[in-house]
Amino acid sequence: MADIAIHSRLRRSPYYEATVAEGVTSFIPYNDMLLPLGYGNPEAEYRNLVDNVSMWDVAGERQIQLLGPDAADLAQVLSARDLSKAKVGQGKYVPVCDHGGSVINDPIALKIADDCFWLSIADSDVGMWARCVAAERGMNVEVSEPDVSPLAVQGPNAEDVVASIFGDWIRKLRFFWFSDAEIAGIPLKIARSGWSKQGGFELYLMDGSRGSDLWNIVREAGEPWDIGIGYPNPSERMESGLLSWGGDCDRQTNPFEVRLGDYVDLDVPDDVIGIAALRRIAAEGPKRHQLGIVLEGDQPRPGHMKWHDVAINGDKVGDMTCGTWSYKLERNIGFGLLSVDAQIGQEVDVQLDGETVGAKLTDIPFTVEDR
Amino acid sequence: MADIAIHSRLRRSPYYEATVAEGVTSFIPYNDMLLPLGYGNPEAEYRNLVDNVSMWDVAGERQIQLLGPDAADLAQVLSARDLSKAKVGQGKYVPVCDHGGSVINDPIALKIADDCFWLSIADSDVGMWARCVAAERGMNVEVSEPDVSPLAVQGPNAEDVVASIFGDWIRKLRFFWFSDAEIAGIPLKIARSGWSKQGGFELYLMDGSRGSDLWNIVREAGEPWDIGIGYPNPSERMESGLLSWGGDCDRQTNPFEVRLGDYVDLDVPDDVIGIAALRRIAAEGPKRHQLGIVLEGDQPRPGHMKWHDVAINGDKVGDMTCGTWSYKLERNIGFGLLSVDAQIGQEVDVQLDGETVGAKLTDIPFTVEDR
Repeated sequence: MADIAIHSRLRRSPYYEATVAEGVTSFIPYNDMLLPLGYGNPEAEYRNLVDNVSMWDVAGERQIQLLGPDAADLAQVLSARDLSKAKVGQGKYVPVCDHGGSVINDPIALKIADDCFWLSIADSDVGMWARCVAAERGMNVEVSEPDVSPLAVQGPNAEDVVASIFGDWIRKLRFFWFSDAEIAGIPLKIARSGWSKQGGFELYLMDGSRGSDLWNIVREAGEPWDIGIGYPNPSERMESGLLSWGGDCDRQTNPFEVRLGDYVDLDVPDDVIGIAALRRIAAEGPKRHQLGIVLEGDQPRPGHMKWHDVAINGDKVGDMTCGTWSYKLERNIGFGLLSVDAQIGQEVDVQLDGETVGAKLTDIPFTVEDR
Repeated sequence: MADIAIHSRLRRSPYYEATVAEGVTSFIPYNDMLLPLGYGNPEAEYRNLVDNVSMWDVAGERQIQLLGPDAADLAQVLSARDLSKAKVGQGKYVPVCDHGGSVINDPIALKIADDCFWLSIADSDVGMWARCVAAERGMNVEVSEPDVSPLAVQGPNAEDVVASIFGDWIRKLRFFWFSDAEIAGIPLKIARSGWSKQGGFELYLMDGSRGSDLWNIVREAGEPWDIGIGYPNPSERMESGLLSWGGDCDRQTNPFEVRLGDYVDLDVPDDVIGIAALRRIAAEGPKRHQLGIVLEGDQPRPGHMKWHDVAINGDKVGDMTCGTWSYKLERNIGFGLLSVDAQIGQEVDVQLDGETVGAKLTDIPFTVEDR
């Protein structure tokens, strides 16, 4: 099988050298940056995350900075979630929609100051989008990508590891809130966040030249816990029901279809992008919803399971957008983007590489009872 | 060394199966699609391109379609090149700039009909950009990415190969013009274009399910010429002076800095994005320009040469943005994005992985006399 060249246009993370030294075995391109996605032992990494603590290079989760008198206005028009009550030091998970109400990213919006927001983005060019909106509307705001590179520490022991470095004050950080910190002269922000449901923190490194230093500090602090070297974990995130923007949606997916309706406030101002479309969709009711899929068979399937037809009694009802092996369920599981006619508990057929595989529709997040 | 996972989010080209059957050895991600960049014998592929004929999967060069009453207006506001005289059937190379005058893509704009343009794009999300502009300006135009996937046939014998399939009429196609065609029921457009200076055509496949069929038709038609299986060629494109958007520029590069000034018309209407900034830059004169760099030494350097400091007498004057082995010059060559104080003929030092390598600044395109 051919590989993807680590070519010149893909940026290296500040943690690149550290991850290579750790034996990284594969990357994915993410916001034009190499994001580690394997160190050769997926099950051990899953166990570290759910039972212990794991550290991940997620620098590819870039920050888009909105800075200036109109920064708060721009953050609001980019997002269909009400940000008017956000406090400095607080982050909020916000769907960014286009004018038709389709989700084009699902960042965390961090309120850095009254005139400064960061959007901690998934894998699409929100910087370009934000610059276009700001310029077209004549807003007084500078959109940039600052030198900020998150390092995630996730898992039930993450708090102890991070507290051992920065002090017990981090134990009081509320979910999605963040605070400035410094270690060994390295400037950073610490947020209680991360792309797992196992708890933990993201260390927003603010000096790309100190990536290896920060990596090694966390690595050494984690030694008493035998910290794992991991990456955003496909099994855990699907078991827990976290969305992977781009992976779990097509180009016309609205927030209500992928369980993001709770993050849409229909009473935001009329100049918020997509809000008219979202109000209409909410009134009419979405045509699709996202359900869990548990496939028959108790052996892991090879390769990536992605965009396979899902049918009930021979009629296509949607797609399994992503699939992976679940260590918790000991089944292959997936997310379905399906007609609202398809309901939890129904039996379906999934077309996988020419094979028809029986499956059951479930709620998300998954539980062992879903087997 | 780690590899990049061929993961679920990267799309497969309609020619994917054909290229795998041909023994593709590496891909790059390009507009979220896998674009082949190697079949294991780079020198043979270079020779096929410059001496004979080569076929390339360039489906990653996606088309952004602007369709509707305001399509021509949208094409024009997206581009600082005057499109008012473009004819149906004609393509034009157009820099797409942001509001500050920085180049965000350099597509071919193909006028498909009076109310329809395609932008045949480099590797950035012009679709998102165009949708934003259209919506913010209330334009009556639909922006989409249709099912269109170019297959390039390049090299001095490309015309004979393409004529043997479609007939001698294609010999009359002018540079960047295109025409509808059909073979074996496969709908396509044929353009005289391609990312080399060796001449040739791009076959815009308009039915993604027929990728292998079209591939095999061209493959078989090319047999009398011993057609090569290639890919956008780093050596030839640099020797010839073709720009690689994203590779040869940073995020604040204006067209005048990278030899695209001829494609900017300063008298386009005031609502063209970036035109005010471009007029100002043109009046003040750009601060940087792009020159050729010929490195000392007659052996190919390993790896990708990218964004290395260039200095004159110890003072940094800019960056070597890309570098590669030139089979024509039998030297390592590069493009420099350099202060306008740096001039053709000057000796410079390039910092390459801790090594200081002497080099000479040259004009672009390169000639053997530049050695």
